[in-house]
Amino acid sequence: MDFTPKDPNFREKVKDSFRRQRFMELIGAELTSIEAGSCEIRLPYREDLTQQHGFFHAGVIGTIADNTAGYAGYSLMEVNASVLTVEFKLNLLAPGKGEALIAKAQVLKSGRTLTVCRCEVYAVNEGKEKLCAAAQVTLIQLQNTSDT
Amino acid sequence: MDFTPKDPNFREKVKDSFRRQRFMELIGAELTSIEAGSCEIRLPYREDLTQQHGFFHAGVIGTIADNTAGYAGYSLMEVNASVLTVEFKLNLLAPGKGEALIAKAQVLKSGRTLTVCRCEVYAVNEGKEKLCAAAQVTLIQLQNTSDT
Amino acid sequence: MDFTPKDPNFREKVKDSFRRQRFMELIGAELTSIEAGSCEIRLPYREDLTQQHGFFHAGVIGTIADNTAGYAGYSLMEVNASVLTVEFKLNLLAPGKGEALIAKAQVLKSGRTLTVCRCEVYAVNEGKEKLCAAAQVTLIQLQNTSDT
Amino acid sequence: MDFTPKDPNFREKVKDSFRRQRFMELIGAELTSIEAGSCEIRLPYREDLTQQHGFFHAGVIGTIADNTAGYAGYSLMEVNASVLTVEFKLNLLAPGKGEALIAKAQVLKSGRTLTVCRCEVYAVNEGKEKLCAAAQVTLIQLQNTSDT
Repeated sequence: MDFTPKDPNFREKVKDSFRRQRFMELIGAELTSIEAGSCEIRLPYREDLTQQHGFFHAGVIGTIADNTAGYAGYSLMEVNASVLTVEFKLNLLAPGKGEALIAKAQVLKSGRTLTVCRCEVYAVNEGKEKLCAAAQVTLIQLQNTSDT
Repeated sequence: MDFTPKDPNFREKVKDSFRRQRFMELIGAELTSIEAGSCEIRLPYREDLTQQHGFFHAGVIGTIADNTAGYAGYSLMEVNASVLTVEFKLNLLAPGKGEALIAKAQVLKSGRTLTVCRCEVYAVNEGKEKLCAAAQVTLIQLQNTSDT
Repeated sequence: MDFTPKDPNFREKVKDSFRRQRFMELIGAELTSIEAGSCEIRLPYREDLTQQHGFFHAGVIGTIADNTAGYAGYSLMEVNASVLTVEFKLNLLAPGKGEALIAKAQVLKSGRTLTVCRCEVYAVNEGKEKLCAAAQVTLIQLQNTSDT
Repeated sequence: MDFTPKDPNFREKVKDSFRRQRFMELIGAELTSIEAGSCEIRLPYREDLTQQHGFFHAGVIGTIADNTAGYAGYSLMEVNASVLTVEFKLNLLAPGKGEALIAKAQVLKSGRTLTVCRCEVYAVNEGKEKLCAAAQVTLIQLQNTSDT
Protein backbone atom coordinates (compact mmCIF):
# COMPACT_ATOMS: atom_id res chain seq x y z
CA MET A 1 0.00 0.00 0.00
CA ASP A 2 1.00 3.57 -0.62
CA PHE A 3 0.67 6.12 2.14
CA THR A 4 1.15 9.87 2.24
CA PRO A 5 2.65 10.95 5.58
CA LYS A 6 0.92 13.87 7.31
CA ASP A 7 4.16 14.91 8.97
CA PRO A 8 6.97 15.52 6.43
CA ASN A 9 9.38 15.23 9.32
CA PHE A 10 8.24 11.71 10.26
CA ARG A 11 11.66 10.04 9.95
CA GLU A 12 13.30 12.35 12.49
CA LYS A 13 10.27 12.09 14.78
CA VAL A 14 10.43 8.29 14.79
CA LYS A 15 14.21 8.12 15.18
CA ASP A 16 14.07 10.56 18.05
CA SER A 17 11.30 8.62 19.80
CA PHE A 18 13.17 5.34 19.32
CA ARG A 19 16.30 6.88 20.81
CA ARG A 20 14.38 7.85 23.96
CA GLN A 21 13.19 4.28 24.57
CA ARG A 22 15.62 3.12 27.20
CA PHE A 23 14.47 -0.47 26.85
CA MET A 24 15.56 -0.55 23.18
CA GLU A 25 19.01 0.52 24.33
CA LEU A 26 19.10 -2.16 27.03
CA ILE A 27 18.41 -4.97 24.54
CA GLY A 28 20.55 -3.46 21.78
CA ALA A 29 17.84 -2.99 19.13
CA GLU A 30 18.61 -0.90 16.02
CA LEU A 31 16.07 1.01 13.93
CA THR A 32 17.24 -0.02 10.44
CA SER A 33 14.47 1.46 8.29
CA ILE A 34 11.56 3.85 8.62
CA GLU A 35 9.31 4.70 5.68
CA ALA A 36 5.76 6.06 5.43
CA GLY A 37 3.73 3.13 6.76
CA SER A 38 6.56 0.66 7.36
CA CYS A 39 9.41 0.09 9.76
CA GLU A 40 12.25 -2.37 10.36
CA ILE A 41 14.17 -3.15 13.55
CA ARG A 42 17.23 -5.39 13.88
CA LEU A 43 18.33 -7.05 17.10
CA PRO A 44 21.71 -8.81 17.27
CA TYR A 45 21.93 -11.97 19.38
CA ARG A 46 23.16 -11.73 22.94
CA GLU A 47 23.15 -14.45 25.58
CA ASP A 48 21.22 -12.26 28.00
CA LEU A 49 18.24 -12.06 25.60
CA THR A 50 17.48 -15.77 25.74
CA GLN A 51 15.02 -18.20 27.28
CA GLN A 52 15.91 -21.55 28.85
CA HIS A 53 16.96 -23.21 25.55
CA GLY A 54 19.35 -20.42 24.58
CA PHE A 55 17.10 -18.96 21.86
CA PHE A 56 15.72 -15.41 21.71
CA HIS A 57 13.06 -15.05 24.43
CA ALA A 58 9.44 -14.77 23.21
CA GLY A 59 9.23 -11.51 25.17
CA VAL A 60 12.10 -10.10 23.14
CA ILE A 61 10.43 -11.17 19.89
CA GLY A 62 7.18 -9.57 21.06
CA THR A 63 9.00 -6.40 22.08
CA ILE A 64 10.49 -5.70 18.67
CA ALA A 65 7.28 -6.80 16.90
CA ASP A 66 5.30 -4.30 18.96
CA ASN A 67 7.87 -1.55 18.52
CA THR A 68 8.16 -1.98 14.76
CA ALA A 69 4.39 -1.87 14.39
CA GLY A 70 4.20 1.17 16.66
CA TYR A 71 6.66 3.15 14.58
CA ALA A 72 5.18 2.00 11.24
CA GLY A 73 1.91 3.47 12.51
CA TYR A 74 3.50 6.56 14.05
CA SER A 75 5.12 7.42 10.71
CA LEU A 76 1.66 8.24 9.34
CA MET A 77 0.32 10.17 12.32
CA GLU A 78 -0.16 13.90 12.65
CA VAL A 79 2.49 16.41 13.70
CA ASN A 80 1.28 16.92 17.25
CA ALA A 81 0.30 13.35 18.00
CA SER A 82 1.62 10.58 20.15
CA VAL A 83 1.18 6.82 19.69
CA LEU A 84 0.22 4.06 22.13
CA THR A 85 -0.22 0.33 21.61
CA VAL A 86 -3.82 -0.73 22.27
CA GLU A 87 -3.17 -4.46 21.94
CA PHE A 88 -0.96 -6.90 20.13
CA LYS A 89 -1.25 -10.55 19.17
CA LEU A 90 1.81 -12.61 18.32
CA ASN A 91 2.12 -16.12 16.90
CA LEU A 92 5.45 -17.81 17.45
CA LEU A 93 6.16 -19.95 14.38
CA ALA A 94 9.73 -21.20 14.83
CA PRO A 95 12.47 -20.90 17.48
CA GLY A 96 14.24 -17.52 17.58
CA LYS A 97 17.55 -19.13 16.70
CA GLY A 98 20.39 -17.30 15.02
CA GLU A 99 22.72 -14.32 15.02
CA ALA A 100 19.94 -11.71 14.86
CA LEU A 101 16.22 -11.00 14.67
CA ILE A 102 14.70 -8.69 12.06
CA ALA A 103 11.17 -7.33 12.55
CA LYS A 104 9.31 -5.77 9.60
CA ALA A 105 5.96 -4.04 10.05
CA GLN A 106 3.49 -2.54 7.59
CA VAL A 107 0.37 -0.47 8.20
CA LEU A 108 -2.82 -2.24 7.09
CA LYS A 109 -5.21 0.57 7.98
CA SER A 110 -4.43 4.07 9.16
CA GLY A 111 -7.50 5.72 10.67
CA ARG A 112 -8.09 8.99 12.45
CA THR A 113 -8.06 7.31 15.86
CA LEU A 114 -6.90 3.72 15.33
CA THR A 115 -4.19 2.16 13.19
CA VAL A 116 -3.74 -1.55 12.52
CA CYS A 117 -0.40 -3.07 11.50
CA ARG A 118 0.98 -6.47 10.66
CA CYS A 119 4.50 -7.50 11.51
CA GLU A 120 6.76 -10.42 10.64
CA VAL A 121 9.82 -11.32 12.68
CA TYR A 122 12.65 -13.27 11.02
CA ALA A 123 15.47 -15.17 12.71
CA VAL A 124 18.68 -14.67 10.75
CA ASN A 125 20.76 -17.84 10.88
CA GLU A 126 24.07 -17.87 8.97
CA GLY A 127 22.76 -14.98 6.91
CA LYS A 128 19.48 -16.67 5.97
CA GLU A 129 16.16 -15.17 7.12
CA LYS A 130 13.52 -17.57 8.44
CA LEU A 131 10.05 -16.44 9.53
CA CYS A 132 9.85 -16.97 13.30
CA ALA A 133 6.84 -14.89 14.37
CA ALA A 134 3.84 -12.98 13.00
CA ALA A 135 1.92 -10.24 14.78
CA GLN A 136 -1.18 -8.13 14.35
CA VAL A 137 -1.14 -4.88 16.32
CA THR A 138 -3.68 -2.11 17.10
CA LEU A 139 -2.43 1.42 17.86
CA ILE A 140 -4.13 4.61 18.99
CA GLN A 141 -3.22 8.15 17.98
CA LEU A 142 -3.38 10.61 20.86
CA GLN A 143 -3.86 14.02 19.32
CA ASN A 144 -2.22 17.10 20.81
CA THR A 145 -0.04 14.91 23.01
CA SER A 146 3.68 15.17 23.10
CA ASP A 147 5.81 12.05 22.54
CA THR A 148 8.38 13.31 25.02
CA MET B 1 -10.28 -23.81 39.34
CA ASP B 2 -8.58 -26.66 41.11
CA PHE B 3 -5.84 -28.59 39.35
CA THR B 4 -3.89 -31.71 40.28
CA PRO B 5 -0.28 -31.43 39.10
CA LYS B 6 1.08 -34.46 37.18
CA ASP B 7 4.61 -33.73 38.36
CA PRO B 8 4.84 -33.52 42.20
CA ASN B 9 8.14 -31.74 41.69
CA PHE B 10 6.59 -28.93 39.64
CA ARG B 11 7.74 -26.05 41.86
CA GLU B 12 11.43 -26.96 41.56
CA LYS B 13 11.02 -27.61 37.83
CA VAL B 14 9.52 -24.16 37.26
CA LYS B 15 12.00 -22.33 39.50
CA ASP B 16 14.89 -24.07 37.77
CA SER B 17 13.57 -23.20 34.30
CA PHE B 18 12.98 -19.58 35.33
CA ARG B 19 16.55 -19.35 36.64
CA ARG B 20 17.92 -20.47 33.28
CA GLN B 21 16.11 -17.69 31.39
CA ARG B 22 18.87 -15.18 30.97
CA PHE B 23 16.41 -12.52 29.80
CA MET B 24 14.56 -12.65 33.15
CA GLU B 25 17.86 -11.94 34.84
CA LEU B 26 18.61 -9.04 32.48
CA ILE B 27 15.33 -7.28 33.30
CA GLY B 28 15.39 -8.20 36.99
CA ALA B 29 12.17 -10.24 37.15
CA GLU B 30 11.44 -12.32 40.26
CA LEU B 31 9.28 -15.45 40.39
CA THR B 32 7.21 -14.67 43.50
CA SER B 33 4.71 -17.52 43.43
CA ILE B 34 4.16 -20.82 41.66
CA GLU B 35 1.18 -23.06 42.39
CA ALA B 36 -0.56 -25.81 40.42
CA GLY B 37 -2.14 -23.82 37.58
CA SER B 38 -1.06 -20.34 38.63
CA CYS B 39 2.07 -18.19 38.72
CA GLU B 40 3.14 -14.70 39.77
CA ILE B 41 6.11 -12.64 38.65
CA ARG B 42 7.25 -9.29 40.08
CA LEU B 43 9.37 -6.78 38.21
CA PRO B 44 10.79 -3.75 40.06
CA TYR B 45 11.03 -0.49 38.14
CA ARG B 46 14.28 0.46 36.46
CA GLU B 47 14.89 3.33 34.09
CA ASP B 48 16.28 1.00 31.42
CA LEU B 49 12.95 -0.86 31.17
CA THR B 50 11.02 2.15 29.90
CA GLN B 51 9.53 3.54 26.70
CA GLN B 52 9.71 7.17 25.58
CA HIS B 53 7.44 8.50 28.36
CA GLY B 54 9.40 6.86 31.17
CA PHE B 55 6.81 4.13 31.86
CA PHE B 56 7.38 0.37 31.67
CA HIS B 57 7.76 -0.59 27.98
CA ALA B 58 4.87 -2.60 26.46
CA GLY B 59 7.44 -5.22 25.50
CA VAL B 60 8.41 -5.63 29.15
CA ILE B 61 4.75 -5.95 30.14
CA GLY B 62 4.24 -8.55 27.40
CA THR B 63 7.37 -10.40 28.47
CA ILE B 64 6.27 -11.02 32.04
CA ALA B 65 2.67 -11.70 30.95
CA ASP B 66 3.92 -14.40 28.57
CA ASN B 67 6.34 -15.83 31.12
CA THR B 68 3.79 -15.99 33.93
CA ALA B 69 1.31 -17.75 31.67
CA GLY B 70 4.01 -20.13 30.45
CA TYR B 71 4.93 -21.22 33.96
CA ALA B 72 1.30 -21.42 35.15
CA GLY B 73 0.79 -23.89 32.29
CA TYR B 74 4.10 -25.67 32.80
CA SER B 75 3.19 -26.35 36.46
CA LEU B 76 0.51 -28.79 35.24
CA MET B 77 2.54 -30.54 32.54
CA GLU B 78 4.05 -34.01 32.65
CA VAL B 79 7.41 -34.93 34.13
CA ASN B 80 9.30 -35.26 30.87
CA ALA B 81 7.70 -32.38 29.04
CA SER B 82 8.77 -28.96 27.89
CA VAL B 83 6.60 -25.89 27.24
CA LEU B 84 6.50 -23.40 24.36
CA THR B 85 4.31 -20.36 23.79
CA VAL B 86 2.14 -20.83 20.69
CA GLU B 87 0.72 -17.30 20.70
CA PHE B 88 -0.19 -14.51 23.06
CA LYS B 89 -2.55 -11.56 22.91
CA LEU B 90 -2.14 -8.59 25.21
CA ASN B 91 -4.39 -5.61 25.81
CA LEU B 92 -2.73 -2.58 27.38
CA LEU B 93 -5.28 -0.93 29.66
CA ALA B 94 -3.33 1.76 31.53
CA PRO B 95 0.24 3.12 31.53
CA GLY B 96 2.81 0.88 33.23
CA LYS B 97 3.54 3.56 35.82
CA GLY B 98 4.90 2.83 39.26
CA GLU B 99 7.57 1.17 41.36
CA ALA B 100 6.88 -2.36 40.08
CA LEU B 101 4.81 -4.59 37.83
CA ILE B 102 3.10 -7.75 39.08
CA ALA B 103 1.86 -10.35 36.60
CA LYS B 104 -0.59 -13.05 37.73
CA ALA B 105 -1.59 -15.93 35.46
CA GLN B 106 -4.12 -18.74 35.82
CA VAL B 107 -4.72 -21.79 33.63
CA LEU B 108 -8.15 -21.76 31.95
CA LYS B 109 -7.80 -25.11 30.21
CA SER B 110 -5.05 -27.68 30.51
CA GLY B 111 -5.19 -30.18 27.66
CA ARG B 112 -2.95 -33.02 26.56
CA THR B 113 -1.35 -30.90 23.84
CA LEU B 114 -2.53 -27.32 24.37
CA THR B 115 -2.99 -25.17 27.45
CA VAL B 116 -4.75 -21.80 27.57
CA CYS B 117 -4.05 -19.21 30.29
CA ARG B 118 -5.21 -15.77 31.22
CA CYS B 119 -2.95 -13.21 32.81
CA GLU B 120 -3.40 -9.81 34.43
CA VAL B 121 -0.56 -7.35 34.87
CA TYR B 122 -0.79 -4.72 37.63
CA ALA B 123 1.26 -1.57 37.98
CA VAL B 124 2.10 -0.97 41.64
CA ASN B 125 2.10 2.75 42.39
CA GLU B 126 2.81 3.81 45.99
CA GLY B 127 1.85 0.33 47.08
CA LYS B 128 -1.50 0.29 45.25
CA GLU B 129 -2.09 -2.25 42.46
CA LYS B 130 -3.80 -1.00 39.30
CA LEU B 131 -4.70 -3.28 36.37
CA CYS B 132 -2.50 -2.22 33.44
CA ALA B 133 -2.73 -5.15 31.01
CA ALA B 134 -4.67 -8.35 30.32
CA ALA B 135 -3.46 -11.27 28.24
CA GLN B 136 -4.75 -14.53 26.83
CA VAL B 137 -2.03 -17.07 26.02
CA THR B 138 -1.85 -20.46 24.25
CA LEU B 139 0.91 -22.93 25.17
CA ILE B 140 1.99 -26.30 23.78
CA GLN B 141 3.37 -29.22 25.75
CA LEU B 142 6.25 -30.97 24.01
CA GLN B 143 6.38 -34.49 25.39
CA ASN B 144 9.67 -36.26 25.99
CA THR B 145 11.53 -33.01 25.50
CA SER B 146 13.97 -31.65 28.00
CA ASP B 147 13.55 -28.09 29.26
CA THR B 148 17.33 -27.65 29.45
CA MET C 1 -15.85 -4.77 39.41
CA ASP C 2 -18.51 -2.18 40.10
CA PHE C 3 -19.50 0.27 37.39
CA THR C 4 -21.80 3.27 37.37
CA PRO C 5 -23.67 3.54 34.06
CA LYS C 6 -23.64 6.97 32.39
CA ASP C 7 -26.98 6.30 30.73
CA PRO C 8 -29.70 5.34 33.27
CA ASN C 9 -31.66 3.95 30.34
CA PHE C 10 -28.92 1.51 29.35
CA ARG C 11 -31.02 -1.66 29.58
CA GLU C 12 -33.62 -0.44 27.12
CA LYS C 13 -30.88 0.91 24.84
CA VAL C 14 -29.10 -2.45 24.72
CA LYS C 15 -32.30 -4.49 24.29
CA ASP C 16 -33.42 -2.22 21.49
CA SER C 17 -30.05 -2.48 19.72
CA PHE C 18 -30.02 -6.27 20.12
CA ARG C 19 -33.52 -6.49 18.64
CA ARG C 20 -32.38 -4.60 15.54
CA GLN C 21 -29.56 -7.08 14.84
CA ARG C 22 -31.11 -9.23 12.17
CA PHE C 23 -28.30 -11.78 12.46
CA MET C 24 -29.18 -12.48 16.11
CA GLU C 25 -32.71 -13.25 14.98
CA LEU C 26 -31.44 -15.56 12.20
CA ILE C 27 -29.43 -17.70 14.62
CA GLY C 28 -32.04 -17.52 17.42
CA ALA C 29 -29.90 -15.81 20.09
CA GLU C 30 -31.59 -14.47 23.23
CA LEU C 31 -30.34 -11.61 25.39
CA THR C 32 -30.83 -13.15 28.84
CA SER C 33 -29.15 -10.53 31.04
CA ILE C 34 -27.82 -7.01 30.79
CA GLU C 35 -26.29 -5.21 33.77
CA ALA C 36 -23.89 -2.25 34.06
CA GLY C 37 -20.68 -3.75 32.71
CA SER C 38 -21.90 -7.28 32.03
CA CYS C 39 -24.10 -9.15 29.57
CA GLU C 40 -25.32 -12.69 28.91
CA ILE C 41 -26.61 -14.25 25.69
CA ARG C 42 -28.14 -17.72 25.29
CA LEU C 43 -28.28 -19.63 22.03
CA PRO C 44 -30.33 -22.83 21.79
CA TYR C 45 -28.97 -25.63 19.59
CA ARG C 46 -30.17 -25.94 16.03
CA GLU C 47 -28.81 -28.24 13.34
CA ASP C 48 -28.24 -25.33 10.99
CA LEU C 49 -25.75 -23.70 13.41
CA THR C 50 -23.23 -26.55 13.18
CA GLN C 51 -19.90 -27.37 11.61
CA GLN C 52 -19.01 -30.68 9.96
CA HIS C 53 -19.07 -32.71 13.20
CA GLY C 54 -22.54 -31.52 14.23
CA PHE C 55 -21.27 -29.20 17.00
CA PHE C 56 -21.87 -25.44 17.24
CA HIS C 57 -19.76 -23.74 14.54
CA ALA C 58 -16.76 -21.70 15.79
CA GLY C 59 -18.22 -18.74 13.91
CA VAL C 60 -21.40 -19.00 15.96
CA ILE C 61 -19.39 -19.16 19.18
CA GLY C 62 -17.39 -16.12 18.07
CA THR C 63 -20.56 -14.28 17.12
CA ILE C 64 -22.17 -14.49 20.54
CA ALA C 65 -18.85 -13.87 22.30
CA ASP C 66 -18.39 -10.67 20.31
CA ASN C 67 -21.99 -9.60 20.80
CA THR C 68 -22.00 -10.20 24.55
CA ALA C 69 -18.79 -8.22 24.94
CA GLY C 70 -20.16 -5.45 22.74
CA TYR C 71 -23.27 -5.02 24.86
CA ALA C 72 -21.41 -5.34 28.17
CA GLY C 73 -19.30 -2.41 26.96
CA TYR C 74 -22.23 -0.51 25.47
CA SER C 75 -24.07 -0.64 28.84
CA LEU C 76 -21.46 1.78 30.24
CA MET C 77 -21.27 4.19 27.32
CA GLU C 78 -22.75 7.66 27.07
CA VAL C 79 -26.31 8.54 26.06
CA ASN C 80 -25.54 9.66 22.54
CA ALA C 81 -22.91 7.09 21.71
CA SER C 82 -22.66 4.06 19.49
CA VAL C 83 -20.38 1.02 19.87
CA LEU C 84 -18.18 -0.83 17.37
CA THR C 85 -15.94 -3.86 17.82
CA VAL C 86 -12.30 -2.94 17.16
CA GLU C 87 -11.00 -6.50 17.40
CA PHE C 88 -11.67 -9.76 19.15
CA LYS C 89 -9.61 -12.81 20.02
CA LEU C 90 -11.21 -16.13 20.79
CA ASN C 91 -9.71 -19.35 22.13
CA LEU C 92 -11.74 -22.49 21.52
CA LEU C 93 -11.27 -24.76 24.54
CA ALA C 94 -13.74 -27.61 24.03
CA PRO C 95 -16.28 -28.65 21.37
CA GLY C 96 -19.50 -26.62 21.33
CA LYS C 97 -21.56 -29.69 22.15
CA GLY C 98 -24.91 -29.58 23.86
CA GLU C 99 -28.43 -28.16 23.89
CA ALA C 100 -27.35 -24.51 24.15
CA LEU C 101 -24.48 -22.04 24.37
CA ILE C 102 -24.29 -19.35 27.04
CA ALA C 103 -21.92 -16.39 26.61
CA LYS C 104 -21.07 -14.18 29.61
CA ALA C 105 -19.05 -10.98 29.22
CA GLN C 106 -17.64 -8.51 31.73
CA VAL C 107 -15.98 -5.14 31.20
CA LEU C 108 -12.31 -5.09 32.28
CA LYS C 109 -11.67 -1.45 31.47
CA SER C 110 -14.10 1.21 30.37
CA GLY C 111 -12.29 4.21 28.91
CA ARG C 112 -13.43 7.39 27.21
CA THR C 113 -12.63 5.99 23.77
CA LEU C 114 -11.82 2.29 24.21
CA THR C 115 -13.38 -0.46 26.29
CA VAL C 116 -11.90 -3.93 26.87
CA CYS C 117 -14.01 -6.93 27.83
CA ARG C 118 -13.52 -10.58 28.58
CA CYS C 119 -16.06 -13.21 27.71
CA GLU C 120 -16.54 -16.90 28.49
CA VAL C 121 -18.74 -19.16 26.40
CA TYR C 122 -20.21 -22.31 28.00
CA ALA C 123 -21.72 -25.30 26.24
CA VAL C 124 -24.73 -26.55 28.18
CA ASN C 125 -24.97 -30.33 27.96
CA GLU C 126 -27.80 -32.05 29.85
CA GLY C 127 -28.10 -28.95 31.97
CA LYS C 128 -24.40 -28.79 32.90
CA GLU C 129 -22.28 -25.79 31.82
CA LYS C 130 -18.80 -26.52 30.46
CA LEU C 131 -16.37 -23.77 29.42
CA CYS C 132 -15.94 -24.04 25.65
CA ALA C 133 -14.38 -20.71 24.65
CA ALA C 134 -12.74 -17.59 26.09
CA ALA C 135 -12.46 -14.22 24.38
CA GLN C 136 -10.83 -10.85 24.89
CA VAL C 137 -12.49 -8.01 22.99
CA THR C 138 -11.70 -4.33 22.29
CA LEU C 139 -14.56 -1.89 21.60
CA ILE C 140 -14.68 1.76 20.55
CA GLN C 141 -17.25 4.33 21.64
CA LEU C 142 -18.36 6.61 18.81
CA GLN C 143 -19.64 9.77 20.43
CA ASN C 144 -22.63 11.64 19.00
CA THR C 145 -23.42 8.72 16.73
CA SER C 146 -26.80 7.08 16.61
CA ASP C 147 -27.04 3.31 17.08
CA THR C 148 -29.95 3.15 14.62
CA MET D 1 4.71 -19.25 -0.44
CA ASP D 2 4.70 -22.55 -2.27
CA PHE D 3 3.30 -25.63 -0.55
CA THR D 4 3.18 -29.29 -1.55
CA PRO D 5 -0.07 -30.90 -0.39
CA LYS D 6 0.27 -34.24 1.43
CA ASP D 7 -3.15 -35.35 0.23
CA PRO D 8 -3.48 -35.20 -3.59
CA ASN D 9 -7.23 -35.32 -3.06
CA PHE D 10 -7.28 -32.16 -0.93
CA ARG D 11 -9.73 -30.20 -3.09
CA GLU D 12 -12.46 -32.83 -2.86
CA LYS D 13 -11.78 -33.28 0.86
CA VAL D 14 -12.21 -29.55 1.55
CA LYS D 15 -15.28 -29.17 -0.67
CA ASP D 16 -16.89 -32.16 0.99
CA SER D 17 -16.17 -30.82 4.48
CA PHE D 18 -17.48 -27.37 3.55
CA ARG D 19 -20.68 -28.93 2.21
CA ARG D 20 -21.29 -30.66 5.52
CA GLN D 21 -21.11 -27.39 7.49
CA ARG D 22 -24.77 -26.61 7.96
CA PHE D 23 -23.95 -23.11 9.21
CA MET D 24 -22.31 -22.21 5.88
CA GLU D 25 -25.54 -23.22 4.17
CA LEU D 26 -27.61 -21.13 6.60
CA ILE D 27 -25.67 -17.95 5.84
CA GLY D 28 -25.28 -18.72 2.11
CA ALA D 29 -21.46 -18.83 1.94
CA GLU D 30 -19.79 -20.20 -1.21
CA LEU D 31 -16.37 -21.83 -1.39
CA THR D 32 -14.99 -20.04 -4.45
CA SER D 33 -11.39 -21.27 -4.45
CA ILE D 34 -9.26 -23.87 -2.75
CA GLU D 35 -5.55 -24.31 -3.52
CA ALA D 36 -2.67 -25.86 -1.58
CA GLY D 37 -2.28 -23.42 1.30
CA SER D 38 -4.96 -20.92 0.34
CA CYS D 39 -8.74 -20.62 0.25
CA GLU D 40 -11.42 -18.12 -0.72
CA ILE D 41 -15.03 -17.85 0.42
CA ARG D 42 -17.70 -15.48 -0.92
CA LEU D 43 -20.79 -14.43 0.98
CA PRO D 44 -23.56 -12.48 -0.79
CA TYR D 45 -25.38 -9.82 1.19
CA ARG D 46 -28.65 -10.68 2.87
CA GLU D 47 -30.62 -8.54 5.30
CA ASP D 48 -30.62 -11.31 7.90
CA LEU D 49 -26.81 -11.26 8.12
CA THR D 50 -26.64 -7.72 9.48
CA GLN D 51 -26.04 -5.85 12.72
CA GLN D 52 -28.02 -2.84 13.92
CA HIS D 53 -26.73 -0.47 11.19
CA GLY D 54 -27.62 -2.81 8.32
CA PHE D 55 -24.01 -3.86 7.60
CA PHE D 56 -22.61 -7.39 7.70
CA HIS D 57 -22.44 -8.50 11.36
CA ALA D 58 -18.92 -8.82 12.85
CA GLY D 59 -19.82 -12.40 13.74
CA VAL D 60 -20.48 -13.15 10.07
CA ILE D 61 -17.16 -11.58 9.10
CA GLY D 62 -15.39 -13.63 11.78
CA THR D 63 -17.18 -16.78 10.66
CA ILE D 64 -15.93 -16.67 7.09
CA ALA D 65 -12.47 -15.50 8.18
CA ASP D 66 -12.18 -18.52 10.49
CA ASN D 67 -13.59 -20.90 7.89
CA THR D 68 -11.31 -19.70 5.09
CA ALA D 69 -8.27 -20.03 7.34
CA GLY D 70 -9.40 -23.46 8.48
CA TYR D 71 -9.67 -24.78 4.94
CA ALA D 72 -6.44 -23.12 3.77
CA GLY D 73 -4.75 -25.05 6.57
CA TYR D 74 -6.72 -28.25 6.00
CA SER D 75 -5.61 -28.30 2.34
CA LEU D 76 -2.07 -29.10 3.51
CA MET D 77 -2.92 -31.67 6.16
CA GLU D 78 -2.51 -35.43 5.96
CA VAL D 79 -4.96 -37.88 4.44
CA ASN D 80 -6.42 -39.19 7.69
CA ALA D 81 -6.45 -35.94 9.60
CA SER D 82 -9.10 -33.54 10.81
CA VAL D 83 -8.75 -29.80 11.54
CA LEU D 84 -9.90 -27.69 14.47
CA THR D 85 -9.51 -23.97 15.14
CA VAL D 86 -7.38 -23.35 18.23
CA GLU D 87 -7.93 -19.60 18.30
CA PHE D 88 -8.54 -16.67 16.03
CA LYS D 89 -7.99 -12.94 16.25
CA LEU D 90 -9.84 -10.53 14.02
CA ASN D 91 -9.40 -6.80 13.50
CA LEU D 92 -12.35 -4.97 12.00
CA LEU D 93 -10.99 -2.21 9.76
CA ALA D 94 -14.03 -0.82 7.95
CA PRO D 95 -17.81 -1.44 7.95
CA GLY D 96 -18.91 -4.61 6.16
CA LYS D 97 -20.90 -2.61 3.65
CA GLY D 98 -21.75 -3.83 0.16
CA GLU D 99 -23.23 -6.57 -1.97
CA ALA D 100 -20.86 -9.31 -0.77
CA LEU D 101 -17.92 -10.24 1.44
CA ILE D 102 -14.87 -12.09 0.12
CA ALA D 103 -12.47 -13.79 2.56
CA LYS D 104 -9.02 -14.86 1.39
CA ALA D 105 -6.69 -16.91 3.61
CA GLN D 106 -3.11 -18.08 3.21
CA VAL D 107 -1.05 -20.46 5.30
CA LEU D 108 1.92 -18.75 7.01
CA LYS D 109 3.31 -21.86 8.69
CA SER D 110 2.22 -25.46 8.29
CA GLY D 111 3.61 -27.62 11.09
CA ARG D 112 3.09 -31.23 12.11
CA THR D 113 0.67 -30.25 14.87
CA LEU D 114 -0.10 -26.54 14.43
CA THR D 115 -0.80 -24.39 11.41
CA VAL D 116 -0.98 -20.59 11.37
CA CYS D 117 -2.88 -18.64 8.71
CA ARG D 118 -3.61 -15.06 7.87
CA CYS D 119 -6.86 -13.94 6.32
CA GLU D 120 -8.19 -10.74 4.77
CA VAL D 121 -11.88 -10.02 4.36
CA TYR D 122 -13.02 -7.56 1.69
CA ALA D 123 -16.38 -5.85 1.38
CA VAL D 124 -17.42 -5.67 -2.27
CA ASN D 125 -19.31 -2.44 -2.92
CA GLU D 126 -20.48 -1.78 -6.50
CA GLY D 127 -17.89 -4.30 -7.67
CA LYS D 128 -14.98 -2.70 -5.82
CA GLU D 129 -13.16 -4.66 -3.08
CA LYS D 130 -12.28 -2.80 0.11
CA LEU D 131 -10.35 -4.38 2.99
CA CYS D 132 -12.77 -4.63 5.93
CA ALA D 133 -11.09 -7.11 8.30
CA ALA D 134 -7.80 -8.93 8.93
CA ALA D 135 -7.36 -12.11 10.93
CA GLN D 136 -4.61 -14.33 12.29
CA VAL D 137 -5.70 -17.90 13.02
CA THR D 138 -4.13 -20.96 14.71
CA LEU D 139 -5.28 -24.46 13.71
CA ILE D 140 -4.53 -27.93 15.02
CA GLN D 141 -4.26 -31.12 12.99
CA LEU D 142 -5.87 -34.11 14.66
CA GLN D 143 -4.22 -37.18 13.19
CA ASN D 144 -6.20 -40.36 12.53
CA THR D 145 -9.44 -38.49 13.10
CA SER D 146 -12.23 -38.48 10.61
CA ASP D 147 -13.68 -35.15 9.43
CA THR D 148 -17.16 -36.67 9.19
